[in-house]
Amino acid sequence: MSLTAAYDSQNIFAQIIRGDAPCYKIYEDEDVLAFLDVFPQSYGHTLVIPKRSAACNILDVDTEALCKMAAVTQKLAQVIVAELQPDGVQVAQFNGAPAGQTVFHIHMHIVPRFSGEGLGVHAAAKADPAELEQLQARLLKRLAA
Amino acid sequence: MSLTAAYDSQNIFAQIIRGDAPCYKIYEDEDVLAFLDVFPQSYGHTLVIPKRSAACNILDVDTEALCKMAAVTQKLAQVIVAELQPDGVQVAQFNGAPAGQTVFHIHMHIVPRFSGEGLGVHAAAKADPAELEQLQARLLKRLAA
Repeated sequence: MSLTAAYDSQNIFAQIIRGDAPCYKIYEDEDVLAFLDVFPQSYGHTLVIPKRSAACNILDVDTEALCKMAAVTQKLAQVIVAELQPDGVQVAQFNGAPAGQTVFHIHMHIVPRFSGEGLGVHAAAKADPAELEQLQARLLKRLAA
Repeated sequence: MSLTAAYDSQNIFAQIIRGDAPCYKIYEDEDVLAFLDVFPQSYGHTLVIPKRSAACNILDVDTEALCKMAAVTQKLAQVIVAELQPDGVQVAQFNGAPAGQTVFHIHMHIVPRFSGEGLGVHAAAKADPAELEQLQARLLKRLAA
């Protein structure tokens, strides 16, 4: 998918926004949705997407939507650090397939890093649903605290 | 450096903000400064930092400063794509040494990706000053266009 491809409203994140596909939701407001990556690169890998900007990537997203994504990314990074106590956190946003983008609705990755643990290859292994549910419950509880 | 370390005002980006160290400046306004990474992972690797938020990372940065960084990151990603025509762009922001952070003043990386070219190892090789000057001139010209 090139950097200037048209937005495809059948992508999986568009389906999640419409409620046509499920997700392990962590946060939602009028503008932003966040949920667990089901192919996590590390424990706690979370995605943050805009709900009302039908944008492929950082080139075509509405700037206000991008700022709202950034603010939610910050809030969730704080929650993830408080709850999971990683040694580091990578925030990443990929644009175009050659940059590692696999779903063409703009999204931020929040990837906790734990010392001595490498990263999994993205989209290589689906997480255990029971583990995702337990992780979701931990983060939701912390977010509400 | 842990995620909760205190801000060290002698870090290299703080020196650049104060004008005590040089940089290949691409953009500056009241709140945000952007310059070329002198240890680039790819051609066009650019850094975006807040000027008035003495923050180590995404956990302690002022949310408004983060949004301003995000908006400038978008603008410069657009400029870099227009001028250098990469096949993809990675935007990344690392928190804590185990996540790859090497300077403890929050910064966004903009890393153009070119098909068939891997990434250099960050901080492994200093770019040629003449190449950085030429790249700076190209991006400044495009930004002004």
